[in-house]
Amino acid sequence: MVKIAIIGFGVVGSGVYEVLRKNASDITANANTEIDIKYILDIRDFSSHSESHLFVNDVNTIINDSEIEIVVETMGGVEPANSFTRSCLKSGKSVVTSNKELVATYGDELFKLAKENGCKYLYEASVGGGIPIIRPLSKCLAANRIDKIAGILNGTTNYILTRMFNDNASFESALSEAQEKGYAEKDPTADVEGLDTGKKICILSSMINGEKIDFKDVHTEGITKITTEDTEYATKFGSAIKLIGLCERLGDKYSVVVAPMLVGNDSPLYGVDDVFNGIMVSGNMLGDALFYGRGAGKLPTASAVVADVIDIAKNKSDKFIEPWTESKTDVLVPYEEIKTSMYVRVETQDASNAIKFIEKEFGNGIKCEIGCGEFAFITPADTISTINNKLSLIPGTVLSKLMVL
Amino acid sequence: MVKIAIIGFGVVGSGVYEVLRKNASDITANANTEIDIKYILDIRDFSSHSESHLFVNDVNTIINDSEIEIVVETMGGVEPANSFTRSCLKSGKSVVTSNKELVATYGDELFKLAKENGCKYLYEASVGGGIPIIRPLSKCLAANRIDKIAGILNGTTNYILTRMFNDNASFESALSEAQEKGYAEKDPTADVEGLDTGKKICILSSMINGEKIDFKDVHTEGITKITTEDTEYATKFGSAIKLIGLCERLGDKYSVVVAPMLVGNDSPLYGVDDVFNGIMVSGNMLGDALFYGRGAGKLPTASAVVADVIDIAKNKSDKFIEPWTESKTDVLVPYEEIKTSMYVRVETQDASNAIKFIEKEFGNGIKCEIGCGEFAFITPADTISTINNKLSLIPGTVLSKLMVL
Repeated sequence: MVKIAIIGFGVVGSGVYEVLRKNASDITANANTEIDIKYILDIRDFSSHSESHLFVNDVNTIINDSEIEIVVETMGGVEPANSFTRSCLKSGKSVVTSNKELVATYGDELFKLAKENGCKYLYEASVGGGIPIIRPLSKCLAANRIDKIAGILNGTTNYILTRMFNDNASFESALSEAQEKGYAEKDPTADVEGLDTGKKICILSSMINGEKIDFKDVHTEGITKITTEDTEYATKFGSAIKLIGLCERLGDKYSVVVAPMLVGNDSPLYGVDDVFNGIMVSGNMLGDALFYGRGAGKLPTASAVVADVIDIAKNKSDKFIEPWTESKTDVLVPYEEIKTSMYVRVETQDASNAIKFIEKEFGNGIKCEIGCGEFAFITPADTISTINNKLSLIPGTVLSKLMVL
Repeated sequence: MVKIAIIGFGVVGSGVYEVLRKNASDITANANTEIDIKYILDIRDFSSHSESHLFVNDVNTIINDSEIEIVVETMGGVEPANSFTRSCLKSGKSVVTSNKELVATYGDELFKLAKENGCKYLYEASVGGGIPIIRPLSKCLAANRIDKIAGILNGTTNYILTRMFNDNASFESALSEAQEKGYAEKDPTADVEGLDTGKKICILSSMINGEKIDFKDVHTEGITKITTEDTEYATKFGSAIKLIGLCERLGDKYSVVVAPMLVGNDSPLYGVDDVFNGIMVSGNMLGDALFYGRGAGKLPTASAVVADVIDIAKNKSDKFIEPWTESKTDVLVPYEEIKTSMYVRVETQDASNAIKFIEKEFGNGIKCEIGCGEFAFITPADTISTINNKLSLIPGTVLSKLMVL
């Protein structure tokens, strides 16, 4: 039997409890041992809970109990999750987390601490919710050099963009609808400004780099400026607009960026709609593989947390290897030097003149769609700075600019 | 350093050699040790190969060499792969395979032998080529009760069906095209009759059942009877026709079947085209997840084999747990008792009379498409035997019948 504690009884934490109770017999069979919840830490009052005797409100009860082998951290946020996790690891307890913010911010230090103390720090649920991505990336694709990861990593923004694309809704009304359905928070900043996606792509990028890639250094754009005009032009170009976390290997550097991008209908990511996530991984031997499913939600995320608990309980003798260490080398290609095609929408009273200019600057035969008092086109691939320089001279006002995946 | 031998230097075996050579530094880093090829067994002449000194033609050279820790079996077919694998396992060497036929036929016995001899028998590459599916199913989804697996598991038939669906090609011409492109073998029986898909879905079914599910007991239909008329009706019903390996949990029984099925455009499998594979797994906590990528091909498949080699080299102390044991209980629902909707195409000179009959038997408001001298409809869900009984009375000739996924 393996005794565990759950720290934080919110959406995911209570989901972990539910998964362990509902699938108890399957989980015991898969883990080859029983998983027993000894404590649940939450400062709120759960005295009317059917298993109220499990609840404690002092983390030291857990840290000082030598019976506890695994701690599930589902508090979210950096503090106090960070201090609690460090204390657990220092006392030799393995920690399993769904906390993308903590993993993206202090993952390198926490992995090191786990290794030093002969325990583990696992984080499958921090990216892609219930979709298996961390373990496949580190284990199943271990024979590949990973050249690219492009992911729709945030269900909230994907729901909003799907409503805008399929039903011609405005950003504002799609956001309201997402809030009504409980997909978006009252303060939707972390989702719609791309911060959530940023942390997740940095976790995946750090894994393939082997050293930390910090989201503070990553160019991050949200979806708040996307208009129905943009989604209409995207359709005309045979594309959808998706918020993409992108990591691409360029020699020994990486371009990592979070931005809404045009995704062509020949991409497997094109059809990833609503609250679903899709993560495309390109290996130099494998080619492209897509992982698709519910990237959030109580039970899917909790089931990924519990899978990590089972892994630790089952393979106690397994050595823990740090997925990444602190950053020693600057591996990021500056945003302006990233090479990409761009979708550009321009307001002008003289479209034919402006298009002549574009053909002179970007070459003939460029894809162009003309609207009322404006037009849109897709540039050939070049560095973002070169494209921006050319666009600064355009006879008209650039209304929007989006990378093409 | 871990010394390995490759048995069978065909497409996958030579791919394993190539992956190990090309990605040597990444692989050493991921395995935390060097993987060294000491022998390659093949009875053909490789004296002009740049590393001809590696080639041997007596399996005992490998079996009797105590330095060899891992043997890669990429021969395919049951014999002599089976005898060779047994000898290796008996001498305590772990075996990694891409051989779906051997795993489906004798997996239970080989897992047992591995366990008894303190070594491992891994088979990630036997299903889905380079797509990670075996490890995600056993590890990442360990907290879920798997309720359903529906997979497009054979690239050859998917290519043929995609050509028939998108370009209105006949089965015969699409098959010829697949043969010209090297996607289909000269004798395409194993692919087009569903035998390959059958072995793969039985491997996945055995994993979730924990006891062997034998493909000899599974109802298996191929795609040779699909006509362009069927693909046209499928389009009208908002569906595509895909060869599906299906395993569905029904209480403590399973319905396992291989057949071409109508897949609606709301399914993530609908867009899985050409030689790609897609495997949809439904967990009781996770909901649906899709794994998508190249299900065959030299390097993708070889990279999955090498991932298993890395796993063994890296985690030597890991206990091997048998994924399934011999069959003790009959868990299969007989084909005739499987519940499903059916697409049915009927030849008749009197469509309005036949449709009246159908509405009487199957209920009003049934989806129906009328053609020239024939029509097609989709039945409500019922057991296959009940549907067949009703269809036997229809005033017309049933031309085709397909399950609806």
